[in-house]
Amino acid sequence: MNQDLQKERAAASFNPELLTHVLDGSPENTRRRREIENLILKDPDFQHEDLNFLSRSQRYEVAVRKSATMVEKMRKFNIADPAEIMWFKKLHLVNFVEPVGLNYSMFIPTLLNQGTTAQQEKWLPSSKGLEIIGTYAQTEMGHGTHLRGLETTATYDSETQEFILNSPTVTSIKWWPGGLGKTSNHAIVLAQLITQGKRCGLHAFIVPIRELGTHKPLPGITVGDIGPKFGYDEMDNGYLKMDNYRIPRENMLMKHAQVKPDGTYVKPLSNKLTYGTMVFIRSFLVGESARSLSKACTIAIRYSAVRHQSEIKPGEPEPQILDYQTQQYKLFPLLATAYAFQFVGAYMKETYHRINEDISQGDLSELPELHALTAGLKAFTSWTTNAGIEACRMACGGHGYSHCSGLPNIYVNFTPTCTFEGENTVMMLQTARFLMKSYDQVHSGKLVCGMVSYLNDLPSQHIQPQQVAVWPTVVDINSPDSLTEAYKLRAARLVETAAKNLQTEVTHRKSKEVAWNLTSVDLVQASEAHCHYVAVKLFSEKLLQIQEKSIQAVLRNLCLLYCLYGISRNTGDFLQGSIMTESQITQVNERIKELLTVIRPDAVALVDAFDFQDVTLGSVLGRYDGNVYENLFEWAKKSPLNKTEVHESYHKHLKSLQSKL
Amino acid sequence: MNQDLQKERAAASFNPELLTHVLDGSPENTRRRREIENLILKDPDFQHEDLNFLSRSQRYEVAVRKSATMVEKMRKFNIADPAEIMWFKKLHLVNFVEPVGLNYSMFIPTLLNQGTTAQQEKWLPSSKGLEIIGTYAQTEMGHGTHLRGLETTATYDSETQEFILNSPTVTSIKWWPGGLGKTSNHAIVLAQLITQGKRCGLHAFIVPIRELGTHKPLPGITVGDIGPKFGYDEMDNGYLKMDNYRIPRENMLMKHAQVKPDGTYVKPLSNKLTYGTMVFIRSFLVGESARSLSKACTIAIRYSAVRHQSEIKPGEPEPQILDYQTQQYKLFPLLATAYAFQFVGAYMKETYHRINEDISQGDLSELPELHALTAGLKAFTSWTTNAGIEACRMACGGHGYSHCSGLPNIYVNFTPTCTFEGENTVMMLQTARFLMKSYDQVHSGKLVCGMVSYLNDLPSQHIQPQQVAVWPTVVDINSPDSLTEAYKLRAARLVETAAKNLQTEVTHRKSKEVAWNLTSVDLVQASEAHCHYVAVKLFSEKLLQIQEKSIQAVLRNLCLLYCLYGISRNTGDFLQGSIMTESQITQVNERIKELLTVIRPDAVALVDAFDFQDVTLGSVLGRYDGNVYENLFEWAKKSPLNKTEVHESYHKHLKSLQSKL
Repeated sequence: MNQDLQKERAAASFNPELLTHVLDGSPENTRRRREIENLILKDPDFQHEDLNFLSRSQRYEVAVRKSATMVEKMRKFNIADPAEIMWFKKLHLVNFVEPVGLNYSMFIPTLLNQGTTAQQEKWLPSSKGLEIIGTYAQTEMGHGTHLRGLETTATYDSETQEFILNSPTVTSIKWWPGGLGKTSNHAIVLAQLITQGKRCGLHAFIVPIRELGTHKPLPGITVGDIGPKFGYDEMDNGYLKMDNYRIPRENMLMKHAQVKPDGTYVKPLSNKLTYGTMVFIRSFLVGESARSLSKACTIAIRYSAVRHQSEIKPGEPEPQILDYQTQQYKLFPLLATAYAFQFVGAYMKETYHRINEDISQGDLSELPELHALTAGLKAFTSWTTNAGIEACRMACGGHGYSHCSGLPNIYVNFTPTCTFEGENTVMMLQTARFLMKSYDQVHSGKLVCGMVSYLNDLPSQHIQPQQVAVWPTVVDINSPDSLTEAYKLRAARLVETAAKNLQTEVTHRKSKEVAWNLTSVDLVQASEAHCHYVAVKLFSEKLLQIQEKSIQAVLRNLCLLYCLYGISRNTGDFLQGSIMTESQITQVNERIKELLTVIRPDAVALVDAFDFQDVTLGSVLGRYDGNVYENLFEWAKKSPLNKTEVHESYHKHLKSLQSKL
Repeated sequence: MNQDLQKERAAASFNPELLTHVLDGSPENTRRRREIENLILKDPDFQHEDLNFLSRSQRYEVAVRKSATMVEKMRKFNIADPAEIMWFKKLHLVNFVEPVGLNYSMFIPTLLNQGTTAQQEKWLPSSKGLEIIGTYAQTEMGHGTHLRGLETTATYDSETQEFILNSPTVTSIKWWPGGLGKTSNHAIVLAQLITQGKRCGLHAFIVPIRELGTHKPLPGITVGDIGPKFGYDEMDNGYLKMDNYRIPRENMLMKHAQVKPDGTYVKPLSNKLTYGTMVFIRSFLVGESARSLSKACTIAIRYSAVRHQSEIKPGEPEPQILDYQTQQYKLFPLLATAYAFQFVGAYMKETYHRINEDISQGDLSELPELHALTAGLKAFTSWTTNAGIEACRMACGGHGYSHCSGLPNIYVNFTPTCTFEGENTVMMLQTARFLMKSYDQVHSGKLVCGMVSYLNDLPSQHIQPQQVAVWPTVVDINSPDSLTEAYKLRAARLVETAAKNLQTEVTHRKSKEVAWNLTSVDLVQASEAHCHYVAVKLFSEKLLQIQEKSIQAVLRNLCLLYCLYGISRNTGDFLQGSIMTESQITQVNERIKELLTVIRPDAVALVDAFDFQDVTLGSVLGRYDGNVYENLFEWAKKSPLNKTEVHESYHKHLKSLQSKL
């Protein structure tokens, strides 16, 4: 064990194991999680060379092997439910990219949700046995978030009872689906249905793309890998072009909508239930944000405890860089944010399961708010995490830039979260649409409930001037509850500003839609403030559930830091509308500096509590055994550029160059 | 030419060629730059496969070939001055990484600055002819910014008249030098000199590391590549460990300090001149920030003009995404920032040359301010650019994540700028030290000059209360000059706050150094505000130099946007101290939205004016010929994963997997 880390751990004010139980939900959950993780981490089948030293094709090969092994192991561990598979695989293995994964996370669930019983009987057994390997092809080269814009067509031919699939333009080529480039032999393709000469909207079709015996593309199918990306090297994101490609009528997923043999189209009863999958994935991504930021903090804070550099007082030994106020100011607010997001993630998971229960009993009443909340929180947490991972990386100085730190890989594999499953700005505007609706509802005299209920208290909603007095004037900067109130006031004010600006634009413009576009900057800001309030509120409420005094104390400081740091980064929002005074802002800045000092002795224990078992796999700097610098030297020696072949090739080149000069 | 881009260009309010001349400094400069760029871009010797499709070893090989070719070409073009070489090579070829580059940018210049005439005669000819390929080895595994902490020793042995070089610990291993891993056969090594039993501080030594005939490491030398990094794939950043490795006395660079044959140490006369190189490199990096951000904006804005997505009004064709207010709000402030940094970069270059003249005539008076300014502006511009490139990348949605966009490479090759040549936080604190000195000077009754002269006007510096009236109370948000005043007041207030907080800590603590650490968050904020003021001031002043009305008008709007956006992101700073009122802040936000609409028709012409000739090499999305989607499809097909070998290897694997399930 590293001496600095040992010293840090001895100095902590609390037992990190107890905090791990809080994060996992219970000691039993912690036990079970470690059991599963160790099954994977200690299994020789999952061991492989450091991916950083491999070419992309080699990385893909390793990933396919691991991915397939995962299928075998899951059978062995008896994990079958799609949601459980996702939590199981992703839980603490953030950087594991799986080419075969889409078969289980998208192909099979879509078959289950949208396929008839006959279709499930036909395709499920072979896709579970990986005879069929499926993926899900929605996005096109020219079309992302806007589903109505998708161009792929499926035209029904009643004579042969087949659909004719076409990619009519370059922009209509399916683009991005994971596992499509190389791995899959089937895809569920989203296409515009045309039957009896009429366009009937987007529907899902099961499309064989490669021959089962040879794995070669079928005639009429052009399929391949879309090329190297920022990250996800191991994933064969692919393209798919179809030219008059025919599939039987039975390949359209017909649980909801149908095309009869004669071409008659039967509409689905309701579209609302497709909300469910989106809500599930986005709420899962909130948890992913928490895990990725926690992991980055773990590496950066451990390294900052081990790294000695420069001097505070001349002549004294070089201090740990964690003792510099600027380093604390970079890392501790992110640590506090990681904890905030852990609790937001846990809340989203619980809420999803609760509302899913309601839905299965036919109660859809909470779905619109949940939909709006997951959209906004997915964007809010992923943007913050995205910038936070890079801040952690840069806080590790030069070594953060090396793949030895593990941080570049965490970043490049996390950053698509800001774009996929709903581009973040689009997500924020979806939340804004709900906020505007709620505002209008209150304005028209009806109360709203849930996380937006603060809109009921907006002063402008009351006719009597004395009602303004319900707004508190003094914020107690040492009280998480009082700070939550301040965030609530900020959200309320920004929602109201956006609503009023929108109204002004509506009265000046011909169309509501143009007005919406011309207010969208304000609308995004309102959504951000709303999400920030939700995060602060959930963190504050979490404190009340903690029994153990030592844990409560340390979480309370983190919660305060999270709240106060947010104020200091958005001072103007809190000064405007007189939520806080200038002298309070000065106090906030002073209190933040005090909290940095208070949290300092617990910093390493606070990241230990995240309990990442696999940090050793991805990061030399985050390892907690041995000497970080010796580990780093051993790692570097294995660089492919140090191989004899490279030496000889270079030397040959050098001689020819010198002879020319 | 793409139709959308053609339409955009036709609609512009100005001729981009005229703005290019402003950016280059003169029409003649533009002509000369294009001439040189075309020599490279059109030369078949510089053509190569897309680096994104190659393994790291292959990329290294391509880079060595290009790097060597560059040496030949520079001889042909007769470019010999080190500064000119740097400007020439980097000017518009941001992503070109050169393993042999350090020989010219560090080894030879250090030899020239610190070597005696005899030493230059001995080593220059062979290093210019690449018989000797040198690098510069300063940083160690455990030591970055803090030079006194370096551990490598050079112990003089007067009996043999040799220095014995040692890397006494793991942390003392030289780490990071470019070209050290594989390419170089010599290094200038920085080591702690020990002679006659006394430590005499850091000195530079010429150390042969590889045998000239075989290019194999010499006995006593352990050298290699430090492994894969976030970017700079083509660069063999290396490590170097020395064990009782002996070099002749003549290999210490002795222009300034000397060790006599008997071991007597002769001190250098002055250390000030070493400032020069740092100032040069940092001022160069300000220009690099401008170029990298300009390039990212070029790609993102062109793509946003070509990309059609979603709908503003239902039923109408998909609009260009550049028509969404949120997209404009992401990109136009960055475009304005890129222009601001272009002018800051040009100013730094001019100032460096001017002060360099003064120095050569013995006048060092302006050096401290220049040193402080380059440190802070290097940090300020590189942090902003770093986040800005990622914002541009994410504004391109999914395709931004693909290497087809060119943006991931721009980012990974730019981001080390925040860390190397002075870590940004350390840089900001150096600027702060100068600001605190200036503040104290004013406080003690002396005037300061240069960019900090605003400190002379601080109200607290005046005894007469009526003097407070010199501070204006009304900011005209449509006047760049008036906005510059507002930034000045903000800087003055934050410098004063930091100075007062520092004073408070000093009176409470035992040591000045501890007080400094406990105020460092405030100090960094003061430096940031100072640099922001400088950027705003230089942009505003630039406007006065522009004759051409159409160019002046468009730059004025960008300048306003730059100023107002900075206020909206730091509202609290402008509300505090009553620099602005709440209602002015509301006006600022409204005015920003207006400016987005005003700038919209000129956006493409504004990035055209940056005149990047090589965007086609690094980015499919930034190309301005042909159809962006067809180009993208052609690019993707070349992905190495689409090769037949990969197909067969995968298919074999698949069959064995299926047989197991």
